[in-house]
Amino acid sequence: MSDRQYQRIETPTDLIARLREMLGDRLSTAAAVLEQHGKDESWHASSPPDAVVFATSTEEVAEVVKLCAAQNVPIVPFGTGSSLEGHVAALRGGICIDLSRMDAILEVHNEDLDCRVQAGVTREQLNDHLRDTGLFFPIDPGANASIGGMTATRASGTNAVRYGTMRENVLNLTVVTPDGKIIKTANRARKSSAGYDLTRLFVGSEGTLGVITEIGLKLYGIPEAMSAAVCVFPSVDAAVDTVILTIQAGIPVARIEFLDEMQIRAINNYSKTDHKEAPTLFFEFHGTDAGVKEQAEFVQSVAEEFGAEEFQWATRQEDRNKLWAARHKAYYASLQLEPGKAGMPTDVCVPISKLAEAIRETRADCDASPLTCTIVGHVGDGNFHTLILLDPNDAGQMAEAKRLHDRMVERALKLGGTCTGEHGIGYGKLDFMEAEHGPDTIALMRSIKSAIDPKGLMNPGKLIPGL
Amino acid sequence: MSDRQYQRIETPTDLIARLREMLGDRLSTAAAVLEQHGKDESWHASSPPDAVVFATSTEEVAEVVKLCAAQNVPIVPFGTGSSLEGHVAALRGGICIDLSRMDAILEVHNEDLDCRVQAGVTREQLNDHLRDTGLFFPIDPGANASIGGMTATRASGTNAVRYGTMRENVLNLTVVTPDGKIIKTANRARKSSAGYDLTRLFVGSEGTLGVITEIGLKLYGIPEAMSAAVCVFPSVDAAVDTVILTIQAGIPVARIEFLDEMQIRAINNYSKTDHKEAPTLFFEFHGTDAGVKEQAEFVQSVAEEFGAEEFQWATRQEDRNKLWAARHKAYYASLQLEPGKAGMPTDVCVPISKLAEAIRETRADCDASPLTCTIVGHVGDGNFHTLILLDPNDAGQMAEAKRLHDRMVERALKLGGTCTGEHGIGYGKLDFMEAEHGPDTIALMRSIKSAIDPKGLMNPGKLIPGL
Repeated sequence: MSDRQYQRIETPTDLIARLREMLGDRLSTAAAVLEQHGKDESWHASSPPDAVVFATSTEEVAEVVKLCAAQNVPIVPFGTGSSLEGHVAALRGGICIDLSRMDAILEVHNEDLDCRVQAGVTREQLNDHLRDTGLFFPIDPGANASIGGMTATRASGTNAVRYGTMRENVLNLTVVTPDGKIIKTANRARKSSAGYDLTRLFVGSEGTLGVITEIGLKLYGIPEAMSAAVCVFPSVDAAVDTVILTIQAGIPVARIEFLDEMQIRAINNYSKTDHKEAPTLFFEFHGTDAGVKEQAEFVQSVAEEFGAEEFQWATRQEDRNKLWAARHKAYYASLQLEPGKAGMPTDVCVPISKLAEAIRETRADCDASPLTCTIVGHVGDGNFHTLILLDPNDAGQMAEAKRLHDRMVERALKLGGTCTGEHGIGYGKLDFMEAEHGPDTIALMRSIKSAIDPKGLMNPGKLIPGL
Repeated sequence: MSDRQYQRIETPTDLIARLREMLGDRLSTAAAVLEQHGKDESWHASSPPDAVVFATSTEEVAEVVKLCAAQNVPIVPFGTGSSLEGHVAALRGGICIDLSRMDAILEVHNEDLDCRVQAGVTREQLNDHLRDTGLFFPIDPGANASIGGMTATRASGTNAVRYGTMRENVLNLTVVTPDGKIIKTANRARKSSAGYDLTRLFVGSEGTLGVITEIGLKLYGIPEAMSAAVCVFPSVDAAVDTVILTIQAGIPVARIEFLDEMQIRAINNYSKTDHKEAPTLFFEFHGTDAGVKEQAEFVQSVAEEFGAEEFQWATRQEDRNKLWAARHKAYYASLQLEPGKAGMPTDVCVPISKLAEAIRETRADCDASPLTCTIVGHVGDGNFHTLILLDPNDAGQMAEAKRLHDRMVERALKLGGTCTGEHGIGYGKLDFMEAEHGPDTIALMRSIKSAIDPKGLMNPGKLIPGL
């Protein structure tokens, strides 16, 4: 984790005046607005911009970018602020472009299973809109994030094991480049071999290459049948071995979520449930009636082979919703284990064969630490998180949390994994980029950044160390 | 299609002498070898390199690239030469790096469903190697292409509707960059948000950004059950409407291939089959016994709704192999319709809702032309090809074929599609890049190319117009 100091560049007052003239009350310099826009949902301190503009069109974003570029003023795109690695911090000051008012769902193509939305549309808004079409958009990071933000951080969530991440589900993008041009990265064809994959270059670029203003997305038919289950295991290994065998057998399970003993305790306290406090898997199956039944039977027999103690089914939508509500509240439930403390989330992803080892050793680290930690994981992908509870004003606790965090990342890298499965780099994980990729790969990323954003104005201080 | 003239750069004799010293008889300047390496399987004329080196390791490729870069000599990577848009033509001369001897399967991780191979491994070789593991690699362009070449052109094939293209199935790459450095684009985690998606940038880069030497790939468990069927329709629209409804219902069909009346006639002649000469779909279903049965029943009922005339099943492997062998021989079968003629393949991809219109109008163009054309399509993705039969020495026929080809591309672009679903740009489709992407998007691609390959030595004249 980075404690670098950044030199702020003072935004010329005439630029702010010019923007105010253009945008009226859609520009704000109110202290509370700046403070809120300089901070995401993580423990990273706020680094406020000098002004926030609330854009309403791609053309307006392009105009703002041009004006900023002309005066070498940094630009930070902002969706809902639900990132976790300080992505929206205006480390060098400048203008924050808030895209939340660009919340139009522009096109839904039922026959093609795709849609086109503005960057400020949230995932819940999109799914509400789609309700009557029989289609849905599966990617579900914990927060009700904006589609633009999810694209910029290459987000995923609980459904990724079946439906992929934002990498697999973005069809094309409209982007305002650092010189204020408006480009489209691709068309609506499902596949294309026509040139460099600019779509994938911008997915996960964290605002460092341009401002994503419109997103074409793949959609899916709502499955005929869904069923969910909770299953308790005698050990982490038994749970993870069940996951491995399920994935290896090609069972198209929609969700496999791991929750450790401490996380179950937190959920029981918070959601007034009575799950047994033991390593647990939450499953969800999508398909036809017969298909779902078959998947469930297969997984159940595998789980039993590994000593699973009980299998509680939820086939009614009401029961499923209750189950997943408890899972989605895991973060808040964990915080309530020690009210008043903050949480430092971690996010590693390893090859699935290394997952039991990674989780087991992480749990041992946590047990040996004075800090309380819960573990949850999107284990079908090899991705898991701890939430480390701490008092951010206690330097000793911060140091201990960072030690636990760093050990997790180092272990993940040693096992062939990554320092971030879905949260991104922001500036919180800059220090791990070189360890993960090596200096020559970082140099290549830097050369791409410099080619597209030669002035280094787009979300400076993020994603690439030393920029 | 491009008829540009390229200025060849003479390769210094001392470079060839130095390479010969290093590689011995793994360097060739024999006319036949040069001629063969300057040409792919398409109608594009050979543009031979000045020497061919047969590399055996990533380090050796790096050494060759460094020596070429030091003397500003162009480099063309070569796999099996089965590309279709002139990708391997040494338009400016230089050194061809043949990777076919880098054919080691380096790692297979059964538990993680992934493997790592050298670039010269072919898809058939990989699947032969995997046979006893219960795993397989699904991407199947017509030819027995190399994995390196398939990566470089973002290839796909008949299984893409279920398993994705090379874009979705490459986990990571080892690449020799234009300055001779060896980089790795990512690790073995299934997902990551750690920085720019360099893997996807190199997938489809056609050798213009570096030489791909090793590829990490996703693998899949061989399904418990497979079944295939042939179904005849009263019209193109009826066949395509069946496809749309199947995809929209989320049926995880493994293959849906369209073959038009003329293509069926060609196959019947060539493979001594007796399929009815009418618009036809070939299906394949993968899953459990019950799942395959259920998928098949659903598709059959949809097809019957659209007036399908008969449904012939092939559940025994022997019958399935026969069916798909006929499909895979479609190219050669078409050529035999008019022995002695060459074939110009086309390759567009449109949103699936536009597919019937695109195929119907293409068929009408073909019927109105004096040239014979067959149509096949990976229609689950909206991707289809015509093969236009012609005498390449007859200028009138060439002009007519190009006219048909250009109309297909223009129609695809107008319908929101792409000029190439899976064959790539090479230099054969350079002229459509700007029409598809617009000048600002092309400028962005060009700036990435210039940043990574500032001397413009990597496969010059390909993918980006004007380079």
